[in-house]
Amino acid sequence: MEHLTRLSKRYSMLIDEYLREKLRGEPEVLYEASLHIIKAGGKRLRPLLVLATARMLGGVEAEARALPLAAAVEVLHNFTLIHDDIMDQDDFRRGVPTVHKVWGVPMAILAGDLLFAYAYKLAGEAADSGLPHAEALRALREMTEAIVRISEGQAMDMLMEAKWDVGIHDYLKMVYLKTGSLIELSTRLGAISAGAGNEVVSLMGEYGKLVGVAFQIKDDILGIIGDPRVTGKPVYNDLRRAKKTLPLLYAYSKLSEEEKREFRSLIGGEATEEELSRAAKIIEERGGISYSLGLARELSERAVEIVKSMEPADVEAKKALEELAVYVVEREK
Amino acid sequence: MEHLTRLSKRYSMLIDEYLREKLRGEPEVLYEASLHIIKAGGKRLRPLLVLATARMLGGVEAEARALPLAAAVEVLHNFTLIHDDIMDQDDFRRGVPTVHKVWGVPMAILAGDLLFAYAYKLAGEAADSGLPHAEALRALREMTEAIVRISEGQAMDMLMEAKWDVGIHDYLKMVYLKTGSLIELSTRLGAISAGAGNEVVSLMGEYGKLVGVAFQIKDDILGIIGDPRVTGKPVYNDLRRAKKTLPLLYAYSKLSEEEKREFRSLIGGEATEEELSRAAKIIEERGGISYSLGLARELSERAVEIVKSMEPADVEAKKALEELAVYVVEREK
Repeated sequence: MEHLTRLSKRYSMLIDEYLREKLRGEPEVLYEASLHIIKAGGKRLRPLLVLATARMLGGVEAEARALPLAAAVEVLHNFTLIHDDIMDQDDFRRGVPTVHKVWGVPMAILAGDLLFAYAYKLAGEAADSGLPHAEALRALREMTEAIVRISEGQAMDMLMEAKWDVGIHDYLKMVYLKTGSLIELSTRLGAISAGAGNEVVSLMGEYGKLVGVAFQIKDDILGIIGDPRVTGKPVYNDLRRAKKTLPLLYAYSKLSEEEKREFRSLIGGEATEEELSRAAKIIEERGGISYSLGLARELSERAVEIVKSMEPADVEAKKALEELAVYVVEREK
Repeated sequence: MEHLTRLSKRYSMLIDEYLREKLRGEPEVLYEASLHIIKAGGKRLRPLLVLATARMLGGVEAEARALPLAAAVEVLHNFTLIHDDIMDQDDFRRGVPTVHKVWGVPMAILAGDLLFAYAYKLAGEAADSGLPHAEALRALREMTEAIVRISEGQAMDMLMEAKWDVGIHDYLKMVYLKTGSLIELSTRLGAISAGAGNEVVSLMGEYGKLVGVAFQIKDDILGIIGDPRVTGKPVYNDLRRAKKTLPLLYAYSKLSEEEKREFRSLIGGEATEEELSRAAKIIEERGGISYSLGLARELSERAVEIVKSMEPADVEAKKALEELAVYVVEREK
């Protein structure tokens, strides 16, 4: 993972500095609320994908041109986090209280809206750093398509919480919309910044989609068997919320009607720690974890193949993207 | 008002049809929630301004090119309404229950976010109906600047509710940001669609700003002396919420320290109907209404002068824009 680690560190610093400079205004409290989660950290996975893809395909010049777009996708991601935290009534994120916990729901809604607008503001600035007008417009339009998908995916996710007849196909569609589409956007924007042709843009989009869905499946797995001291997330959060994750859906489909009834009584807001732990055990025993990990690894391998097929302008970026596709499924947090 | 009425009717039908066709997708409930307030009606003031400005400056061809942008600003406006209603905990809008009242806060946040994205989607489509790439990109960037301003203005407004030392200058700045900037955007986009030069774009932007601020001041006035059976809004809503409106701020500045103390005790969430009515009377007696109406008329007159100075490609649209600047301050609802 050495190339990935090196690039990731450099890009994180670059993006953080860029955002600190760009996200300024008044009233102060609105900007504080908007920056709260960004400042609390995060993997900066999406800007890394924009910048590394641009660099792999077009070298350091493309990388420089892609910087505003990389910042834009990170801002977009943080907008979705602030609004999701309100919708999910989550109290903590990245080890700090969520925005609505600190400033209340109205200011949190507004902080998310401001970041939404800033994502477009930053992306629009790509036209000033050398991206031709037609490509800059295309970037903005692709960004828009992604946000529509994210919103649709988030709605699907919310609707699924109340349902039990969720097929794996529906789950994968939801995950693509909610999580995969923004990562797909990131690699597409990187490729567009490098002036890549449509075929390469599509292929790198496919890579992003695969990595994004694999990433989410791994998140689902860590939510059930991950060590909360390592992941930093409350144990059994998804089960407590009856979230329809892949391990759960797979295992549930293997249960008899009676077992299904019992399983449903073990999860949700009223369940005790012991019941949740029993539900997690059932998921593992019925193959939910191994099936999900197997699928995530398959997606990851297909993503690696795509990167391997690329003619690189920069070998380190290419290696980092290969490593990243492996990292998303092998990580422990 | 005959030209205004004629254009307004035609444009409303045009926009409604356009939006019905464009705002489609899944999950159904998300799109239903997003369309709820749009379907409930509204003045369609902002698309009217886009289309009439485009037509005045560039005739029917410019008007046709401007349609996606006109639809975009209406969608943007409705996004702000959905989120504002959550923030203000309003139960009704346009005679129907607000989105969060029907579908809950999470779905309402999401419905707003979806409309936000659709505003960009529609605006991006202006490039497909003949607007050159550079201008389409400019339109998207101006839209973004407006949304940043709206968010900042909404935050200022929220912060002002808890404050009493609000100067008229601060109030006017807030109203420009929160309300004026989107109307300014509308006329600017209309001018850009017509291929107008920078000077004309700026002048028409100034017209929009003046009309927007005058519109809001008139709203403030109607909130105090308007007939709720005509306005359709609950009586003394702003006073109950201790909103810092222009009539209130002006009258308050004329009170002695003791009168100020008394006045503050008459408004807010705990006040009785009788106390609110007494506060309204004080505002009127201390010149709050006549001062505000005077200022709104002054702004309206300046807006009329700007339109009069324009070389029109279409005389009816010009007349309608003159009438509109008068209408916003003379309306009773």
